[in-house]
Amino acid sequence: MSKKLTKRAEDYSKWYNEIIVKADLAENSAVRGCMVIKPYGFTIWEKMQAALDLMFKETGHQNAYFPLFVPKSLFEAEEKNAEGFAKECAVVTHYRLKNDPNNPGKLIVDPEAKLEDELIIRPTSEAIIWNTYKGWIQSYRDLPLLINQWANVVRWEMRTRLFLRTAEFLWQEGHTAHATKDEAMTEAKQMQEIYAEFAETFMAMPVIKGAKSESERFAGALETYTIEALMQDGKALQAGTSHFLGQNFAKAFDVKYTSKEGKQEFVWATSWGVSTRLIGGLIMTHSDDFGLVLPPKLAPIQVVIVPIYKGEEQLKVIFEHADVIVKALKDKGISVNFDDRDTFRPGAKFAEYELKGIPVRIAMGNRDLQNNTVEVARRDTLEKQIISKDVVVDFVIDLLEKIQKNLFDKAINYRDQHITEVNSFDQFKDVIKNKGGFISAHWDGTKETEDRIKELTKATIRCIPENWDQQKGRCVLTGKESVARVLFAKAY
Amino acid sequence: MSKKLTKRAEDYSKWYNEIIVKADLAENSAVRGCMVIKPYGFTIWEKMQAALDLMFKETGHQNAYFPLFVPKSLFEAEEKNAEGFAKECAVVTHYRLKNDPNNPGKLIVDPEAKLEDELIIRPTSEAIIWNTYKGWIQSYRDLPLLINQWANVVRWEMRTRLFLRTAEFLWQEGHTAHATKDEAMTEAKQMQEIYAEFAETFMAMPVIKGAKSESERFAGALETYTIEALMQDGKALQAGTSHFLGQNFAKAFDVKYTSKEGKQEFVWATSWGVSTRLIGGLIMTHSDDFGLVLPPKLAPIQVVIVPIYKGEEQLKVIFEHADVIVKALKDKGISVNFDDRDTFRPGAKFAEYELKGIPVRIAMGNRDLQNNTVEVARRDTLEKQIISKDVVVDFVIDLLEKIQKNLFDKAINYRDQHITEVNSFDQFKDVIKNKGGFISAHWDGTKETEDRIKELTKATIRCIPENWDQQKGRCVLTGKESVARVLFAKAY
Repeated sequence: MSKKLTKRAEDYSKWYNEIIVKADLAENSAVRGCMVIKPYGFTIWEKMQAALDLMFKETGHQNAYFPLFVPKSLFEAEEKNAEGFAKECAVVTHYRLKNDPNNPGKLIVDPEAKLEDELIIRPTSEAIIWNTYKGWIQSYRDLPLLINQWANVVRWEMRTRLFLRTAEFLWQEGHTAHATKDEAMTEAKQMQEIYAEFAETFMAMPVIKGAKSESERFAGALETYTIEALMQDGKALQAGTSHFLGQNFAKAFDVKYTSKEGKQEFVWATSWGVSTRLIGGLIMTHSDDFGLVLPPKLAPIQVVIVPIYKGEEQLKVIFEHADVIVKALKDKGISVNFDDRDTFRPGAKFAEYELKGIPVRIAMGNRDLQNNTVEVARRDTLEKQIISKDVVVDFVIDLLEKIQKNLFDKAINYRDQHITEVNSFDQFKDVIKNKGGFISAHWDGTKETEDRIKELTKATIRCIPENWDQQKGRCVLTGKESVARVLFAKAY
Repeated sequence: MSKKLTKRAEDYSKWYNEIIVKADLAENSAVRGCMVIKPYGFTIWEKMQAALDLMFKETGHQNAYFPLFVPKSLFEAEEKNAEGFAKECAVVTHYRLKNDPNNPGKLIVDPEAKLEDELIIRPTSEAIIWNTYKGWIQSYRDLPLLINQWANVVRWEMRTRLFLRTAEFLWQEGHTAHATKDEAMTEAKQMQEIYAEFAETFMAMPVIKGAKSESERFAGALETYTIEALMQDGKALQAGTSHFLGQNFAKAFDVKYTSKEGKQEFVWATSWGVSTRLIGGLIMTHSDDFGLVLPPKLAPIQVVIVPIYKGEEQLKVIFEHADVIVKALKDKGISVNFDDRDTFRPGAKFAEYELKGIPVRIAMGNRDLQNNTVEVARRDTLEKQIISKDVVVDFVIDLLEKIQKNLFDKAINYRDQHITEVNSFDQFKDVIKNKGGFISAHWDGTKETEDRIKELTKATIRCIPENWDQQKGRCVLTGKESVARVLFAKAY
């Protein structure tokens, strides 16, 4: 397979797919819309999981595991939620195969093993979890209940894309139960905050926090808080959502608690999730025409050392010097790889590591050793520097921090240059067509206007941003009164 | 709910189920045969995962993720494997629900959204993975391929039991590809060894390593290596298996590589797995009539400190002293909980921690503080000791190691007392009926004899043990020649 990537400017979508396949992150599987996450891609997911899991646990959440299946009779209990997902449900109807009498060696579904109550593969687990919580919650002493699960879910999407939209994906879903509305609201916002912190600190991906408009809310939620990122092609990516579910699920599943005052009350709920879609966001935020660019905090390998040598003897000497650096870096918690494969030349290795987004590459040759130097290349800027071997460990540790920061700064610069304040619908259409990014515009608050704008421009309301200095104005489409600007964008 | 447990001697099976529910490990769900793993039980699984994952990675394996679904057309490619699992397959036949025209608010499966090639929920992933490996393996340079995945699988069992046999369970499945038969054999045995080491070192559960007889092998395997543990009721538990798959899957999915000599060769395969079933084994190996007993290395909370106090003032003083111990233990990597809940009395807390199997309990009262002592209770022996507060940290660290060792010693004693060498079939029946445990007996090597013994006694061949000093003899049932003793037992 050619290592040469399509350029972003030529075909952004093709570039994205090629990076994923060529950098060995994932590939399409034999199952329609489902992907195989390859070891290199999966390690990024493991690093994301570790960081998020710690943040969840530090805020008092515990992990548990609930069934993959939701009986149809439970699934339909919360009507809005059921309606929202009904068209994307994979359904188990039978529990046995048998030999095909007409076709030796082949199997058919055994018609006698039909389920009475069909099983939905969870597209999200509110129904099965709230049906369980009914047995766990009796008194105010049982609250709050703060639970998360790491799981696979299935949503039968018609148009799929590696990481961004797949029929099966991996995610975490938090499901919490609270005694009061305020507490549930605080939880929902706290988790949005945690997602934002994770995105910015670990992924180096700036996000805008806000609330969804009614038509963009999670099915069954009263409020959906979102973090929205901007990709390099000017399209927005919803990167994580946290929902205030009110008492909808408590009522659907009859989950009540006895208050301190001895009264029976319905419980208040939240749910929140991020998924392997984040990896898509990570790729599209930082990568370039040479391949993947990874922030050091999530890179499976942070530093690679490539020996430049002729013959075993030189390699041995280089190895001895490199090994000191490898050990010193590992002691500092840096993941580092010494690449002594003799089946590839240094040039091929350089290209491979560029494609795979290893943040720092160190080259060590015979001449370097004579000069007591090494060559250090950073992936983000592609700059190279000759560094004294004596200081290389501290230099690299410092450089990894600089790269992490530089990626964030670059991304937030791009993002901020792509928030355009717009005051007429002509300007709106012009920006969507020619510039892309977020449009900050007044909206009259109606679903009709939102739908009409989407129809005309394909832009949707990404969020009603939080903590923005807002002034009243006139809706960009209808001229009706508006209390605040909202953010529009075309989105993944 | 009453905290009082059924005694093991009264009803072992009821005792087992009660422990799981009362210690908050898991419960049955609304989905037939599927369990909910509660936070306390899930934390044990997380600790198992962390230890195993490290062992896998240290031996060069990487994690990846493959689809939940296996298209029926792929599933049937390796016939023996397909035949072995066909009767337990949950099958997705449709991908959409729609409103029930006859029943407003209800949903039905949309008959127009029927899949042409039905999707099997993976009961194991050889088929989907080997179909993928076909694209990953071209040359000897691509080998060995050492991959593991942590996943959920579904086997539609008719009789289920929490942790031991559930329709959905969590597991890891390793799938490796090798250039030679020897290498694959070595891998399969290495993983059996890792499982044995994990079981004995972390779970304090002694195991016997051996090979399965042909009829007990994994469907599609040429050899199945197993670790077999003994439960307190005299029944064996297959705790982990590692399979040498020969070239069966390579041939079914046409996976070949070009050797150094330029020849096209089929690849050699292994697969290996352990599951949440291990938690069932953990419970049944150590627990007693008072509740769960957990080895310190897998206990979610290793030490609990219970203050005995009257009034806020006393609690405050105790807290100050306890906090020093808590911090010192945490510094040593010990998980410790100071239980200052005022909604429960100390006696109730003691009972709860006994039931939940916390290895070490420290009680601190006013009088203790005056004497500069604390009371330390160990869960395994239920012994209590008064210890000077000045040495309690070192004492507890040492005690945790002692408990870990004591649990293993106790279990291996019991196990060794329950391996009975048997030389007649009358004795065989007597031991199975009245003593239980493993029976070491000669077997003529035929499936007929194996089946007949199972029919007559419900005992199966657990394994042909490795590294046992073996002598020839006569089959315990037929009197025919036998080359070695094998281990029989009734099993979970």
